[in-house]
Amino acid sequence: MKTLSQPTLILSLLSLLLLLFLLAQFPPPAQAKFSRLGVHRPRSPTQARRQPDDDDVESDFVTFYYNQTLDHFNYRPESYTTFRQRYIVNVKHWGGGGATTNAPILVYFGLEGRIEHALENIGFLTENAPHFKALLLYIEHRYYGESVPFGSWEKAGYLTSAQAMADYAAVILHVKRTHSAGNSPVIVVGGSYGGMLASWFRLKYPHIALGALASSAPILYFDGVKPGGGYYSIVSKDFKEASESCYKTIRKSWVEIERVASKRNGLSILSKKFKTCSRLRRTFDLKDYLDSLYSEAAQYDEPPDYPVGIVCSAIDGAPNDDVLGQIFAGVVAYMGDSSCYDVASDSAPPAPSASAWSWQMCSELVFPIGHDGGDDTMFPPAPFDLKSFTKICRSRFGIVPQPHWVTTFYGGHDLKLALHRFASNIIFSNGLRDPYSSGGVLENISDSIIAVSTINGSHSLDILTSMPSDPDWLINQRKTELEIIGRWLSKYYIDLVQFKLLPSS
Amino acid sequence: MKTLSQPTLILSLLSLLLLLFLLAQFPPPAQAKFSRLGVHRPRSPTQARRQPDDDDVESDFVTFYYNQTLDHFNYRPESYTTFRQRYIVNVKHWGGGGATTNAPILVYFGLEGRIEHALENIGFLTENAPHFKALLLYIEHRYYGESVPFGSWEKAGYLTSAQAMADYAAVILHVKRTHSAGNSPVIVVGGSYGGMLASWFRLKYPHIALGALASSAPILYFDGVKPGGGYYSIVSKDFKEASESCYKTIRKSWVEIERVASKRNGLSILSKKFKTCSRLRRTFDLKDYLDSLYSEAAQYDEPPDYPVGIVCSAIDGAPNDDVLGQIFAGVVAYMGDSSCYDVASDSAPPAPSASAWSWQMCSELVFPIGHDGGDDTMFPPAPFDLKSFTKICRSRFGIVPQPHWVTTFYGGHDLKLALHRFASNIIFSNGLRDPYSSGGVLENISDSIIAVSTINGSHSLDILTSMPSDPDWLINQRKTELEIIGRWLSKYYIDLVQFKLLPSS
Repeated sequence: MKTLSQPTLILSLLSLLLLLFLLAQFPPPAQAKFSRLGVHRPRSPTQARRQPDDDDVESDFVTFYYNQTLDHFNYRPESYTTFRQRYIVNVKHWGGGGATTNAPILVYFGLEGRIEHALENIGFLTENAPHFKALLLYIEHRYYGESVPFGSWEKAGYLTSAQAMADYAAVILHVKRTHSAGNSPVIVVGGSYGGMLASWFRLKYPHIALGALASSAPILYFDGVKPGGGYYSIVSKDFKEASESCYKTIRKSWVEIERVASKRNGLSILSKKFKTCSRLRRTFDLKDYLDSLYSEAAQYDEPPDYPVGIVCSAIDGAPNDDVLGQIFAGVVAYMGDSSCYDVASDSAPPAPSASAWSWQMCSELVFPIGHDGGDDTMFPPAPFDLKSFTKICRSRFGIVPQPHWVTTFYGGHDLKLALHRFASNIIFSNGLRDPYSSGGVLENISDSIIAVSTINGSHSLDILTSMPSDPDWLINQRKTELEIIGRWLSKYYIDLVQFKLLPSS
Repeated sequence: MKTLSQPTLILSLLSLLLLLFLLAQFPPPAQAKFSRLGVHRPRSPTQARRQPDDDDVESDFVTFYYNQTLDHFNYRPESYTTFRQRYIVNVKHWGGGGATTNAPILVYFGLEGRIEHALENIGFLTENAPHFKALLLYIEHRYYGESVPFGSWEKAGYLTSAQAMADYAAVILHVKRTHSAGNSPVIVVGGSYGGMLASWFRLKYPHIALGALASSAPILYFDGVKPGGGYYSIVSKDFKEASESCYKTIRKSWVEIERVASKRNGLSILSKKFKTCSRLRRTFDLKDYLDSLYSEAAQYDEPPDYPVGIVCSAIDGAPNDDVLGQIFAGVVAYMGDSSCYDVASDSAPPAPSASAWSWQMCSELVFPIGHDGGDDTMFPPAPFDLKSFTKICRSRFGIVPQPHWVTTFYGGHDLKLALHRFASNIIFSNGLRDPYSSGGVLENISDSIIAVSTINGSHSLDILTSMPSDPDWLINQRKTELEIIGRWLSKYYIDLVQFKLLPSS
C-alpha cells in the first residue's frame, strides 16, 4: 500500500524503476498488487501541499534516535540486540505535561517508507497542534528509512507488525518520560498500513493510546473477511462513474491488446503505439502498467484534479475508432507528455524500502487482492492465487505467507460482534473512491468506534495537509474527526481527575 | 507462582528436592521467591478434591496434539519450526456448535505445570459444564508437561507469555473449526499465572474470547504498580489474624536463630533442634525454609483446615519459654511428623518445569517480591534487589530481566483509567488471605470488569473442585462468578442474532 507521503522527484524515478523491475520479476496473475507499491505518481503532492511557512515548520522538528530492542517477544540471545530507531518531535505548540495541563500527544505512525515525508504531508498533526496544544511525535517503522536493524536486509525476519507496534509503545513511553508527560493522553494517527497499525495499536495497547485515527486502513482485507475482488471492483466503479464510455473502452482494450500482439510484429506495434522506452517483451508488462495506472488514479482520485476524470476525458476525447489510441491518450494525460514511457524495464535494483514491504506482504500481510471478475469489472478475470503467490514468496525471500495470522492476532471476522461491547475510541475514515476502502470498516461498531466515510474521498486524504481548493465534504470530514477526538479527550480529563485520586488498581 | 494443580506424591518429593536445590543456589535476600515455586505441599489436594465418579470423568477427556508454531512474531527461518502442543477436550456435556445451539466453550489456560492436573482440580470447568452445555478445552502451556519445543531446554528463548497466548489463540480457533463451533462463545479460565494469561488474553484477543475468569491473577505485581512488600505483608496479616501471639513468636524467632547460630556449634544446635536431614551450613537455609512454609500456609490458607491456624495452634501450644521449640512445633504441625526435615539439600537437579518458571521470572515476569519491612511484618527486612536478581538471572540463564516489559505490553499503571471506557467481560477473583492478592485487581474497573474478592479466600480457591465442607462465602463467590458469566453469554447471544444478519464489517 502506498500513500501520498512518498514522493520527491528522485524517489518517483526510483519507484518507477522499481515498478518495472518488479513487473519483470513476477509472472502474470496473482502478483499484480506487488507492483502497486512502486507506482510512479506524476504529480508531487509533497511539493503541492507544502505549507507556506515551510522553513519555519522544518526547524520545529527535532530528530532523535532510540535504542530499540530487536525482538520484543522472545529472549533468545539475539533478541536483546538493539537498533537505532528514528523519531521526530515537535513541541512548538505543546501545552506541557507535568501535573498541570497534561496536554495531548499526537503520534504519527510511520508506514512503509521514510518518516520525514510525513512532516509536511500529514497536515492532521501540524494543523491541529495549536488547537490541541499538542506535542507531535513521528515514529519511523522498523526496516524503513534510517531505522533498519543491522543496517541491511540481512535480518528481515524481525519485520512484523507486532514488533513494529511494540517499538511504537516503547518510543511513546520513552517520550512521555523524557517530557514528564505521564498523564498526557496519546492519540495515534496513521494512514493506509499506518492506519492499520493505529487501529490495532488502540486495540492492543489501550493503556498507551487513548484513541486512534485510522485513515484508509483496510484491516478487513485479509483471510476472506471481505472479497478479494473488492479493490478492482472499486477501481472499475470509479471509472464507470467518471464516464461510462471510458469504462467500456478500457474494458474492451485488453482483448484489443492481445489481438494486436498476436499479429506479426505485434509487440513492436504495441511498443510503438505506447511509445515504450524499450521494446515490449510480453503483453503482460503493458497490461500491468495500465492496470497500475488506473488503480493509482482511482486510489488517489483527489480534488481538485481528480485524475480518473483526467484519464477518462482523454480516452473519451480521442478518436473512438482506435481503442488503443484512446488508451494511450489516457496514459499521456495521466503521466504527462514524454518522449517515451517506461512500461517495462528491469535494469534497476529494488529499493530497500519497497523490498521490505514486499517482505511484509509475503509474510503476515497477505492481501488477497485479485481480479475476481464479475459484471462490474473493467478488468479481465485473474483472481488472487495463494498457491502461486506462496511460490513466489518462497523463492524470493525464503518465507511462506501466513494468510490466517492477521485474523488470528488482530481479528477481523465478525468485527462488530467482537468489538461492539469491547474497545472504544477508534475512527475508521475512508474515502469511498479509494479501492482499499473495500477492506475498510465502513459501519459504526459502537458509539465510540466510528466509521467516517466520504463518497468522493480517496486514499488517506483526510489526514493530508489541507489545501485552499479542498471541497466542503473534505473540510467537514476533518471537522467531524476533530470533534470526535475532542470528545475522547474531554472524557479522559474527567476520568483523570476521578481515577487518579483512587489507588491504582 | 504455584497453584494447587501440581502435586502427586512423586511430584511433591521432586519439588521439595528442587526447593532445597534452589535454596542452595541462591544467596540470601532478593531471591527468596524463587523457592516459592518449588515448595512442598504436604496435603495432596489432587487426591482430596477428586470427584467421586473419578473414573468416568477421566474417560470423557480426550488428548490431542497440535502442530504449534514456535515463533508467532517473527519470520526468521527457525520461526516456522513447530512443536507438539498438548490439549485435552471434553464434549460430554456439550450442546453442540453448528447453526443451532452455539453452546459455549470453557477453556482452561495451562500454567507452569502439566495440564492433566487441571482435569480433576479445576472444578469450575467440570462442575459447570452441564449448566452451560459447554465444551471443555484444556491447553498445556509451551515448555511445560509434554509441550516442550525441541523436547528440552535448548531453546527456552521462545518461552514468553505473548507466545503462549498466541499458541492458545491458534488452538482455540483450531478446536472451534474442528467442532464446527465458529459462533460458540469462548470463556477463558485460569488461576495464578494462568489467571494473568486469561485476563490478558481477553484484552489482547477479544475476537476469540468473549470473557475471562482470572482467579488470583497478580497482574499488578510488576514494575512498581503495587508495592513489592505486599506479598509478605499479607502473610504477616494472615498470621496476626490467626493469633497475635503466634505472629509475635515468629517475629522474634529470626533474631533467636541468629543468636543460637552465633554460639559455638550453633549450627549443630539448630540442626538438632529442627531435626534437619543434613547438617545446616548457614542460617539462611533454615530461615528461608520457614519463610517458605509460612508463605505457603498463607497462600493456601483454605477451608476446612486453614493451615495458618494449624501452624499457629502448634506454636501457641508449645512451651512459651522456648521460641525455637515453638517454631519447630509449627513445622511439625504443618509438615507432619517425620524422622527428619529436608531443610537444606543440594543433591537433586532442578526439575525441568520449575526451571522453565524460573526462566520466565528471570526474563519478562519480574515479580519484585521482597521483605520491605515496616511495622506490620513478621519478617526481617530484605527488599527485592533488581541488581542482584539480574546478576543471578544472567549467570544462571544468560538472560537479563526486563522489568518494564509487562507494563509496556499489558499495562498495569492506572489500570482503571486505561480500561474504564475500554474492554469488558473480565472477572478478577481474589481471596484476600492469598499473599498474591496484594498484586490483584480488587476494585471494579467498570460494569463488566469486575472484582470478586472474598475476605477468607486463598489462592485460586474459587476455581478448584468444590468439596462438601466448602463454606457459604465460597459457594456464593462461585455463584456470583457464574451469574456474571451467564450475563455475558446472554448478551452475546442477543448480539449474535443482531450482528450476524448484517454484513461483517
